[in-house]
Amino acid sequence: MATNRKKISVIGAGFTGATAAFLLAQKELGDVVLVDIPQAENSTKGKALDMAEAAPVLGFDAKVIGTANYEDTKDSDIVIITAGVARKPGMSRDDLVQINQSVMKSVTLEIVKHSPGSTIIVLTNPVDAMTYTVYKESGFPKNRVIGQSGVLDTARFRTFIAEELNLSVKDITGFVLGGHGDSMVPLTRYSYAGGIPLETLIPKERLDEIVARTRTGGGEIVNLLGNGSAYYAPAAALVEMAEAILRDQRRILPSIAYLEGEYGYNGIYLGVPTILGGNGIEKIIELDLTTDEKASLDNSAEAVKNVMNVLS
Amino acid sequence: MATNRKKISVIGAGFTGATAAFLLAQKELGDVVLVDIPQAENSTKGKALDMAEAAPVLGFDAKVIGTANYEDTKDSDIVIITAGVARKPGMSRDDLVQINQSVMKSVTLEIVKHSPGSTIIVLTNPVDAMTYTVYKESGFPKNRVIGQSGVLDTARFRTFIAEELNLSVKDITGFVLGGHGDSMVPLTRYSYAGGIPLETLIPKERLDEIVARTRTGGGEIVNLLGNGSAYYAPAAALVEMAEAILRDQRRILPSIAYLEGEYGYNGIYLGVPTILGGNGIEKIIELDLTTDEKASLDNSAEAVKNVMNVLS
Amino acid sequence: MATNRKKISVIGAGFTGATAAFLLAQKELGDVVLVDIPQAENSTKGKALDMAEAAPVLGFDAKVIGTANYEDTKDSDIVIITAGVARKPGMSRDDLVQINQSVMKSVTLEIVKHSPGSTIIVLTNPVDAMTYTVYKESGFPKNRVIGQSGVLDTARFRTFIAEELNLSVKDITGFVLGGHGDSMVPLTRYSYAGGIPLETLIPKERLDEIVARTRTGGGEIVNLLGNGSAYYAPAAALVEMAEAILRDQRRILPSIAYLEGEYGYNGIYLGVPTILGGNGIEKIIELDLTTDEKASLDNSAEAVKNVMNVLS
Amino acid sequence: MATNRKKISVIGAGFTGATAAFLLAQKELGDVVLVDIPQAENSTKGKALDMAEAAPVLGFDAKVIGTANYEDTKDSDIVIITAGVARKPGMSRDDLVQINQSVMKSVTLEIVKHSPGSTIIVLTNPVDAMTYTVYKESGFPKNRVIGQSGVLDTARFRTFIAEELNLSVKDITGFVLGGHGDSMVPLTRYSYAGGIPLETLIPKERLDEIVARTRTGGGEIVNLLGNGSAYYAPAAALVEMAEAILRDQRRILPSIAYLEGEYGYNGIYLGVPTILGGNGIEKIIELDLTTDEKASLDNSAEAVKNVMNVLS
Repeated sequence: MATNRKKISVIGAGFTGATAAFLLAQKELGDVVLVDIPQAENSTKGKALDMAEAAPVLGFDAKVIGTANYEDTKDSDIVIITAGVARKPGMSRDDLVQINQSVMKSVTLEIVKHSPGSTIIVLTNPVDAMTYTVYKESGFPKNRVIGQSGVLDTARFRTFIAEELNLSVKDITGFVLGGHGDSMVPLTRYSYAGGIPLETLIPKERLDEIVARTRTGGGEIVNLLGNGSAYYAPAAALVEMAEAILRDQRRILPSIAYLEGEYGYNGIYLGVPTILGGNGIEKIIELDLTTDEKASLDNSAEAVKNVMNVLS
Repeated sequence: MATNRKKISVIGAGFTGATAAFLLAQKELGDVVLVDIPQAENSTKGKALDMAEAAPVLGFDAKVIGTANYEDTKDSDIVIITAGVARKPGMSRDDLVQINQSVMKSVTLEIVKHSPGSTIIVLTNPVDAMTYTVYKESGFPKNRVIGQSGVLDTARFRTFIAEELNLSVKDITGFVLGGHGDSMVPLTRYSYAGGIPLETLIPKERLDEIVARTRTGGGEIVNLLGNGSAYYAPAAALVEMAEAILRDQRRILPSIAYLEGEYGYNGIYLGVPTILGGNGIEKIIELDLTTDEKASLDNSAEAVKNVMNVLS
Repeated sequence: MATNRKKISVIGAGFTGATAAFLLAQKELGDVVLVDIPQAENSTKGKALDMAEAAPVLGFDAKVIGTANYEDTKDSDIVIITAGVARKPGMSRDDLVQINQSVMKSVTLEIVKHSPGSTIIVLTNPVDAMTYTVYKESGFPKNRVIGQSGVLDTARFRTFIAEELNLSVKDITGFVLGGHGDSMVPLTRYSYAGGIPLETLIPKERLDEIVARTRTGGGEIVNLLGNGSAYYAPAAALVEMAEAILRDQRRILPSIAYLEGEYGYNGIYLGVPTILGGNGIEKIIELDLTTDEKASLDNSAEAVKNVMNVLS
Repeated sequence: MATNRKKISVIGAGFTGATAAFLLAQKELGDVVLVDIPQAENSTKGKALDMAEAAPVLGFDAKVIGTANYEDTKDSDIVIITAGVARKPGMSRDDLVQINQSVMKSVTLEIVKHSPGSTIIVLTNPVDAMTYTVYKESGFPKNRVIGQSGVLDTARFRTFIAEELNLSVKDITGFVLGGHGDSMVPLTRYSYAGGIPLETLIPKERLDEIVARTRTGGGEIVNLLGNGSAYYAPAAALVEMAEAILRDQRRILPSIAYLEGEYGYNGIYLGVPTILGGNGIEKIIELDLTTDEKASLDNSAEAVKNVMNVLS
């Protein structure tokens, strides 16, 4: 009985997808297949080859290949979806939703065909609706279709807090519920530095400013870059979720999860604390919320539903 | 007496510079300052912030900042130069040399001013001539001005060999002398799989093909990408050299080194095996060469001199 | 200006000292000098050589030497003291204190002589009094003489909680104040799983049992081993503190720190939350305590003073 | 389809077994079961618990348990055997062989019963004969019963060479054939520093001294320790072999392998270069030997056969 390498496919070879592929290989989580459309086949192969050529120097044992052929993704353990378009000037939000929904559908067909036992992690925006689309289209059980947003949001929050307090990021924890970006619901009372509640370390006003900065953290990078959006931290977030599943770590991480009654919602994907392990989402953790927090989460759920209404 | 973090500045925030910065931070080799010109200040800040936001997830303790102000590089232990232009259609080789020479000069002035005790690693092409320019301009001792090419060339060679033999990259070693690319002098008799000479494992014809592919390894990526050049493996190569120096590892790595009699050359920078440690190039290792190898190395040195003649 | 390796000396080559040395080397935190008394010189050299012979396989660049000669510790950045005797049947607590106090004094003289700029981390029990002894004897500023106990106590607590909840240890945090063992003051309200207060996840009774197990965690291992005491987790704790200092991480970790007014105590070493960085203890963090918590801490401080009274 | 953790059982909880267990956990290669005889059950549990308590600090996700019950080893991917006695004063070599053969037999029965699909790595001495015993007793295919000696021997050789040349161990490679210790056959012509043959870097006399030291490397540690034998480097060697198999790395490592015609021997286990991957020994690599080397290897094989003759 041979022991086999894990296999992870990353759909979409843009900056985030490529960076995620590189991190997966560096961590030796398995062999990596980077996939993009036929028009981008060569550049996808080029990126993968460049990464593979870094392996002897960085000392990792992982194959990295680029392809436009989904047969190369066969029997993936994890599939990460970063494909899709970004909103461009003049494009309405509804246009964006419909374009990316269509991308999700075609990608999902290929995943179901080639890796029916895989777990899927979705990054494409608007992530709640896109994860829902993949869930519906795949017919996979809900625990194996997961969206990313909270790991990234908390990473940004933790970075800002570590900088504010001049402390190691390792000792800062954060906590968010709800959707990505504007409708994010930060639970600062569950956020700490070395276990000490942030609310006792940072004046409320300043903490509010940091929360506000976190909410618009994606936009801050977009504005600075001028031409593109963040990819290092988003890729790291995807890889942390994939690692929790691939190594069956049973980590508590925020996920975009399908709710069936939890927190009072039904039939939507929303950011909630989850246990991620070998079965994907092993459990959704329900917290008691204050009235204010519940109201914010309701707003967030409403925003998700509004986007879902655009889905065809 | 406080223990202090190391500091590494990376000049040029393009793909290679940014990827090198990210790897340096991931490896916790020190705090990282990513520098580019004022016109790119915002995007440089954006990339650095994005990397910093990955720190809590990847678990590294290293500050990463982006800047256009060289005062932020003050007292760097290592400065890596990736700045400069790539050759574009219609640009003569001589134009390229002169433009990048001018970039090297202005960058070096800033390094000398702010980090007079640093060690400099140069990636900018044509790397032999650019390293020479930095050496002359800086007035630094020769052991502290080093060019990168051989680590990357051997990484590519090792990758191709590992693929050919279906073996771990960890057990493949390679060896090159001379310049980057076309004038590279591979010493296959010093290249092994698990200590076994490659020449006994791979038929000569096939080994020659792999050598040829290595020689044009940079071009292979350029052709695939269509619009840009390799950056993952080049960045990894830079970081391995920086690590050897920052951690005083005394590693045997190929460097572009200033020769004063070694191998029969004088006053040029050329790729040779070196010991890299806390003092930069601690030693140049001289090998006995066959007549053929010496002839190839002479060609390579000639090519370097031809480029140097273009320097103003 | 050469970059130099850090240097860490570990005094006492028993299981904990040797394991700490091995971990320090594995993490490439610096070169390691393992020191024991002349009677144990050969076995100390044997352990160090055995570790050094693991370096090529584990891939770490760090010298490890064993010695009975303190001149080999010259200019250490960090000195870790694990030397001393364990309490044996028939030995009174006061005898133990006096024997180990005498060991601390002679060790400290050597440290002051050879590494006057070092930071000292003490593990030897009773750790509060022994750290105090080293502080007084060394004349070092208080920030550079630190005792270990809380990192180990919280590690045990976190392990038991992770097992109880079947979760990754990575997401469990714990918090203790006061002395080691019986007089430990666990602050469960500052202890979390993925940011969620443990008190909401585990029934109070069960949590109390886990706290009780933590308090006697050292004894549990002693009883199981039958002949000796824990060394893996204690060594890991020492190394985490050393790393925070050597890499100037500014981590929030519990330390045995010298108090001058903090928490209402003066002139004693007691376990409190601290920021560890390049200057050793960069700051003592003062928390508001409940009446119960303060009473427990008073008991703990009283216990420390009782031991200090035995010091000659 | 859940992704599952790998499982590794280590039989024998002495210093080498315990250190191997700790390294396996640190590297997150899988969950670890440390097994010893019922009389040592408590101390085995104590060691495992101590390791587990280091996990939150070192940041590894791996269960470590101690047991005397082989049912806990069920479905292991890899089983490492370190059990057995060491030769004591007054014990003949033949006594040692017979005692350890009996240990191998009983351990193998348990492995076959509980982990019929596992790959077994044997460390117990005399390792060639003990690996043969496990092979015969298990009925496993030869690729899944492997002995360790060459990884350790080369690790020692590499350490001594790195020290001699004052170079990083990372760039030194070594090569041995044959049995462990006295009958080891070092192939110095296949040993390099940075790819440069050692024979060109170190005078023959000095190299011979280093080879001689390597041959008696185990004895050197025994003499220094006074009471016990090496365990850090042996454990590291076992873990490197296990990793190559668990992660299907296809590494070239020396193994004690069952020969059926290779190098002209039949029906014995002997140290030869192999490819280790997901199937255990994926291939035995045959090298051309000089007349001297072949004669040495014949001696080594003869020594192995002499020990095998003692097997009942």
